[in-house]
Amino acid sequence: MALAKINTVAIVGGTHGNEFSGIYLERRYRQQPELMQRSSFSCKTLFANPQAHEANRRYLHSDLNRQFKTVDLADPTLTNYEQSRAKVINAELGPKGAAKTDFIIDLHNTTSNMGPCLILTQAGPLYNQLAAYVKLKMPKAVISRDEDHFAQDDHALLCTVGTYGVIVEVGPQPQSVLRQDVLEEMHEMTQHILDFIELSNLGKLPELPKKVEAFRYLHSIKLPMSSSGERLGMVHRNIQDRDYLPIMPGQPLFTLFDGSEICYDGEQVVYPTFINEAAYYDNNLAMSLNEKVWIELN
Amino acid sequence: MALAKINTVAIVGGTHGNEFSGIYLERRYRQQPELMQRSSFSCKTLFANPQAHEANRRYLHSDLNRQFKTVDLADPTLTNYEQSRAKVINAELGPKGAAKTDFIIDLHNTTSNMGPCLILTQAGPLYNQLAAYVKLKMPKAVISRDEDHFAQDDHALLCTVGTYGVIVEVGPQPQSVLRQDVLEEMHEMTQHILDFIELSNLGKLPELPKKVEAFRYLHSIKLPMSSSGERLGMVHRNIQDRDYLPIMPGQPLFTLFDGSEICYDGEQVVYPTFINEAAYYDNNLAMSLNEKVWIELN
Repeated sequence: MALAKINTVAIVGGTHGNEFSGIYLERRYRQQPELMQRSSFSCKTLFANPQAHEANRRYLHSDLNRQFKTVDLADPTLTNYEQSRAKVINAELGPKGAAKTDFIIDLHNTTSNMGPCLILTQAGPLYNQLAAYVKLKMPKAVISRDEDHFAQDDHALLCTVGTYGVIVEVGPQPQSVLRQDVLEEMHEMTQHILDFIELSNLGKLPELPKKVEAFRYLHSIKLPMSSSGERLGMVHRNIQDRDYLPIMPGQPLFTLFDGSEICYDGEQVVYPTFINEAAYYDNNLAMSLNEKVWIELN
Repeated sequence: MALAKINTVAIVGGTHGNEFSGIYLERRYRQQPELMQRSSFSCKTLFANPQAHEANRRYLHSDLNRQFKTVDLADPTLTNYEQSRAKVINAELGPKGAAKTDFIIDLHNTTSNMGPCLILTQAGPLYNQLAAYVKLKMPKAVISRDEDHFAQDDHALLCTVGTYGVIVEVGPQPQSVLRQDVLEEMHEMTQHILDFIELSNLGKLPELPKKVEAFRYLHSIKLPMSSSGERLGMVHRNIQDRDYLPIMPGQPLFTLFDGSEICYDGEQVVYPTFINEAAYYDNNLAMSLNEKVWIELN
């Protein structure tokens, strides 16, 4: 089955103002557009949250990457800086649901040890083939699925403004730091995505693997908290940095400051992502739990 | 030669509001004072910059750890939040030059791969023996000397308010993250310092090594910048994470965004610290350069 033709692509950096790789990669592509141009589609870039970057913060008023639900984009009472930026970006790349942009690539960093990760926020054959292509070209890439919990209208992420959209998420990198290795992995994955769109448009995709390993988001878990809202512990040292590696029932998850441990009380083997991500402390989130799944190509 | 008797010790956390290890360790010692008490001195804790921590920032108005020059502490026109906190802390632990606190331990984190590092900000036999004791008990500890560029009056660091003062600096840890491994290293080094003071006070120090390796601060170097103040490149991937490892004349230091490299043009082998530290981007500092020195005990 032929995939939809992609005519317009946007590469977005700086959705979070202290994630430097996307900010510098967007700037590089803007200054050297030949790096993002292909024969079969047009491609432009967008610097999503310049004021947050100026302040060297993730955001000024609220997380920009949680402002793109269709109902919120239409709500004139949502007026803070990021809510306003969301409306501007929706006008520029969208409007969501009838977008002038066929495919959005949103560039992000994490402090977690997640390597180069492709996050799919919707389902469908184009995403399946994209995942297979990226894994074929970049075996260390990890595919993450976070697409079937919400209808697209209810998805709050920036990349859902496009008809298609993905997140390139690379770590570990501290907030407000630019690492060459992380920047190069982000560049490499973005190039593979652009190449995939080009080859798909031209009907020239290579033979792709029929099964691709992926991690499907289940739910997040919180740091141990007291009833008064004080943190009582931290991610266990044997979990730290082990994103994507299995957590077995009964395995220690947290070390409390009194020296005791809290263990995983689920019955299913799970795979953590965003372990000890700095930006999630606001909500006391310790990590996301995932199941391992296989994407099957027809 | 007997060392000066230390009667009062203060352990300071949260001088920088987004360096979580010291903030949590100060809280732990405050809640479990038996961990810091010894027989021969009194010990208390101080949470230096609670409002910056509340804001999840290094500081609100200016870096608190640059506000402790004697002339600035006496200047009533310096009134911002951190300048005010400095005056309060000087009254509580100092006053600088005639302090009621004999020894200050100031707890810090870095995003750089510096491991557990003891930074000495003054010179003298007590510091030399402390360095030897810490290396004896914790071989992976690194001794850093930053003490002979300034008279103590001109030293702007918080720990110089005490008659004696050191910084415990542990990394790598992203800003606004708490890692168990980093917290435990900070705790271990702090315990060794407290034990040293106790044993020194009691005249019961063990036999110490006669020579201790240390790194002496020379100067900092900046990221490559354009004449209009835009960053042109980043720390070279072969330098990243290699704190304390030698940089040879001619070795690449930076990768520019155009792909070219800038090499180290000094004639002396140097040893970098604070490589790509997030907090130093404000001033476009890329790393500190040091020479290797030996502390010799008489």
